[in-house]
Amino acid sequence: MDLHILDHKLRVTSITKTGLQQYTHPLIKLIFLRNRTRCKFFSLTETPENYTVVLDEEGFKELKPSEHLQVEGSTWFPLNVVSNGNASSSSQAVGVTKIAKSVIAPLAEQHVSVFMLSTYQTDFILVREKDLSVVVETLLEEFNIFREEGGESVPVHSQDACNGLQRNGREVPHARVHPVLIPENQFCVMSLDPDTLPAIATTLIDVLFYSNRYESCCFLLLSGELWRMVRIGGQPLGFDECGIVAQISQPLADSDISAYYISTFSFDHALVPEEDIVSVTEMLQAQRKDMSS
Amino acid sequence: MDLHILDHKLRVTSITKTGLQQYTHPLIKLIFLRNRTRCKFFSLTETPENYTVVLDEEGFKELKPSEHLQVEGSTWFPLNVVSNGNASSSSQAVGVTKIAKSVIAPLAEQHVSVFMLSTYQTDFILVREKDLSVVVETLLEEFNIFREEGGESVPVHSQDACNGLQRNGREVPHARVHPVLIPENQFCVMSLDPDTLPAIATTLIDVLFYSNRYESCCFLLLSGELWRMVRIGGQPLGFDECGIVAQISQPLADSDISAYYISTFSFDHALVPEEDIVSVTEMLQAQRKDMSS
Repeated sequence: MDLHILDHKLRVTSITKTGLQQYTHPLIKLIFLRNRTRCKFFSLTETPENYTVVLDEEGFKELKPSEHLQVEGSTWFPLNVVSNGNASSSSQAVGVTKIAKSVIAPLAEQHVSVFMLSTYQTDFILVREKDLSVVVETLLEEFNIFREEGGESVPVHSQDACNGLQRNGREVPHARVHPVLIPENQFCVMSLDPDTLPAIATTLIDVLFYSNRYESCCFLLLSGELWRMVRIGGQPLGFDECGIVAQISQPLADSDISAYYISTFSFDHALVPEEDIVSVTEMLQAQRKDMSS
Repeated sequence: MDLHILDHKLRVTSITKTGLQQYTHPLIKLIFLRNRTRCKFFSLTETPENYTVVLDEEGFKELKPSEHLQVEGSTWFPLNVVSNGNASSSSQAVGVTKIAKSVIAPLAEQHVSVFMLSTYQTDFILVREKDLSVVVETLLEEFNIFREEGGESVPVHSQDACNGLQRNGREVPHARVHPVLIPENQFCVMSLDPDTLPAIATTLIDVLFYSNRYESCCFLLLSGELWRMVRIGGQPLGFDECGIVAQISQPLADSDISAYYISTFSFDHALVPEEDIVSVTEMLQAQRKDMSS
């Protein structure tokens, strides 16, 4: 399998609920008017606490500092696993489940904290720039690693990655057992062709910027699967603890249960198929019992 | 002919160029998300100086006071002429030209200042609430006047209009001769079905909120007529001077030349057909020579 280190220097930010209004102008530009900005990577996640915005440095320039904007201090790079034809796993599962053992677990063992952004098509594993050399060393055994540079994929060898990058020597705390919350809401996971974005722009703008009372957003209820959410964390998780994704994705991988995983500024979120929510709940309860005993 | 006093209490406001960004949230709501607001009358005009926003009191609530928002002190009511079948004029012209003699001129004679908003379908003549009784008295000879109230058209007689409304006794300055400016730009005048608004929302949002360098806005060049603009006023006109619209629309009516007329916070603007711009220019030059001599 191939692992690509994408050519995006990302910032992880958060906008308060009350501050959204004053960021309407740059956010609409970043989401809907791609010709107006050089931003190539943009993700917005609304949670009851705040809005998490992950975007590259070009996009980050559009967000003026204010009391409503919090910015995590590091630069992050997105990793992306590309399975190149020769199916190495017999798993039918999608999402982080597929990369739990090959990527998530090894990085957790090396104390590398990750920020996950699952999408319909693929999963982005964000790691800090300063952890890149450890990441490469750790994953080189399992993967052919490429670094995207100006549209080209350049193979990475252990030495390259270490050039100018310091080894991750710092002692980082290992994952505690975090409480989980499983709300009743059902979720749809969708993908959208960029060309169809204008057609639903007013609906999306309405949902994103004007529906502050958590109205039903399921305006496009497809015939597809429904998903349930597991929120990880009773208190905001911060960015330094590592192994949180591993703690959740490991048992899901053992049971071959698909999962999307979305990190936000305060909490992590796993989405699992509706039909698996009972077994996932039992699994997580058992895990919490084991680890706390 | 019928004249309707519409059931909208309007405010005339202006937003600075640099302030637009902070009003993106309420403006997008007012323009594109009609289910989210009770605003029933909304008009936005961009000029090189600023943005003029005319809207009813429900819409006005959405605009938070700031150094970037200027508000004219009065409440205005829109008048609307409805020609009910029996064509009283043989004119083929559209716009203010049709109401120049019957509405604009008589109001100017009575020192009532008007704020014009032409649209593709019709022309709104905005008058101040305190001038309503004079307006009714002045126009009752020529028109059947109705006041829209909660969806019904109630006939207005002279006495009704005067009830509780004071006579316009104030001495107002009569129109000076204002310089005119005729830029090279060509304009299209369009109308849009509300149902098709979502389909062009991102284009409109782009033009309204992100094209600050006066780019070509003619994204929908129809086969229809092209129009040229006459801007009236060298210095900002203010709101108290009356007879400005009459001064322009009178000679256009005499020559049966169609004209849209759009007042803004700082200047007035007449749009005349491209093929008439030479004769209109000559006409206005002659008028300026006469009046200043």
